[in-house]
Amino acid sequence: MRILLVGATGTIGTAVMNELASQHEIISAARSEADVLVDITSPESITAMYQAIGKVDAVISTTGNTYFGSLQELTPENNEISIESKLKGQINLVLLGMNHVNDRGSFTLTTGIIMDDPIAGGVSAALANGAIKSFVEAAALEMPRGIRINNVSPNVVLESLNKYGPYFPGFEPVPASRVARAFRKSAEGIQTGQTYKVY
Amino acid sequence: MRILLVGATGTIGTAVMNELASQHEIISAARSEADVLVDITSPESITAMYQAIGKVDAVISTTGNTYFGSLQELTPENNEISIESKLKGQINLVLLGMNHVNDRGSFTLTTGIIMDDPIAGGVSAALANGAIKSFVEAAALEMPRGIRINNVSPNVVLESLNKYGPYFPGFEPVPASRVARAFRKSAEGIQTGQTYKVY
Ligand SMILES: NC(=O)c1ccc[n+]([C@@H]2O[C@H](COP(=O)([O-])OP(=O)(O)OC[C@H]3O[C@@H](n4cnc5c(N)ncnc54)[C@H](OP(=O)(O)O)[C@@H]3O)[C@@H](O)[C@H]2O)c1
Ligand SMILES: NC(=O)c1ccc[n+]([C@@H]2O[C@H](COP(=O)([O-])OP(=O)(O)OC[C@H]3O[C@@H](n4cnc5c(N)ncnc54)[C@H](OP(=O)(O)O)[C@@H]3O)[C@@H](O)[C@H]2O)c1
Repeated sequence: MRILLVGATGTIGTAVMNELASQHEIISAARSEADVLVDITSPESITAMYQAIGKVDAVISTTGNTYFGSLQELTPENNEISIESKLKGQINLVLLGMNHVNDRGSFTLTTGIIMDDPIAGGVSAALANGAIKSFVEAAALEMPRGIRINNVSPNVVLESLNKYGPYFPGFEPVPASRVARAFRKSAEGIQTGQTYKVY
Repeated sequence: MRILLVGATGTIGTAVMNELASQHEIISAARSEADVLVDITSPESITAMYQAIGKVDAVISTTGNTYFGSLQELTPENNEISIESKLKGQINLVLLGMNHVNDRGSFTLTTGIIMDDPIAGGVSAALANGAIKSFVEAAALEMPRGIRINNVSPNVVLESLNKYGPYFPGFEPVPASRVARAFRKSAEGIQTGQTYKVY
């Protein structure tokens, strides 16, 4: 398959790349240091990316920034970080990419355990994840030409513990390689509308 | 209790008013024809409303516009209707209202059955609802001073069948008065982080 991997240079994106690169043609995308440059917070940038790369069989998103901070520090302004990037950015990858995905292709987006198992400081991330999950479940039923859509919800990842560990006390971290297998399941499988929880 | 009811003039808001007005002091809010005027898509307008009314014991939101249309017609632009109003508008009622709610007060937001039971044309509404539900579940755990937060998820309402009926084939409509009781349960009860499904 020809697969567009947005967020390819990140912690989870690198693991997905390792999981899929030997058997598929991967086009990496990110704001820097990738085959194609894109900023998912800009619909124009997403459109330009799809025009540049031509048709693909799968779009995988392992990106989306979120705001971490206590509810009392959460403002309409800093909440926009999650809404613009993880929420709207990922949804617009689908809305603007639908005509660039081959028949029976797929989209796979990223959510996260925070939507099921809330942590201090995670309100903004939780709402972005919840939006993506509900979007996936509803959109799966209206996708044209047999295109499928799923999301992968990772637990905190072993490789990110230095960055996110203190936010996830008592959580059982999972290796990024395990998260990557859920993306393979989504792209190579037949299911749609699913949330693959890697907890 | 002193209760701010945003969306008081709508189908569900009117039913909530009927349910609560005999026992509580209700301040109605909407863009027109209400005690206090507010446009929830504007953080400045929300802030001005809270400054105008003083402290309250409960904030109830029975508002939030959403875009209805097929996935193939859904664009980054028309999806903004749901994101600006139902999603961000309701969340900002909480973020900007927290300091205007008395100790052990409450927020109650509105979601909807579409997030659990998808319908054609409901993708944009579904994602807004999913975001609100996840926001409520996470925010409940970080609320200061014993403030609670819940959401009510109505089925299609009997009184709205002329408007929304065709979108909900085979759904069992519920009277708005039944939905209103869930708002009473949230405001007068002790639970938090809940989704009251009126299905
Ligand atoms: N790591 C975890 O433990 C964990 C757990 C649960 C969920 N998640 C979720 O998984 C996703 C990836 O996490 P991660 O830890 O792998 O992130 P990461 O290491 O920070 O990598 C993010 C990737 O996305 C790219 N990117 C960032 N902003 C972008 C934008 N606006 N447009 C296009 N590309 C952008 C980055 O490259 P550039 O900076 O060059 O653009 C990079 O390739 C996120 O949604 C995160 O919330 C992570
Ligand atoms: N009706 C149903 O069957 C049903 C089912 C499930 C969920 N819901 C949800 O329940 C909520 C209320 O639905 P409804 O049918 O009662 O709506 P509605 O009859 O259209 O009433 C909407 C109310 O909100 C106000 N409003 C609209 N936009 C506003 C804004 N930007 N700022 C402040 N106030 C605003 C309206 O007054 P103004 O126009 O004067 O501002 C009115 O008071 C919505 O979130 C809807 O998605 C409804």
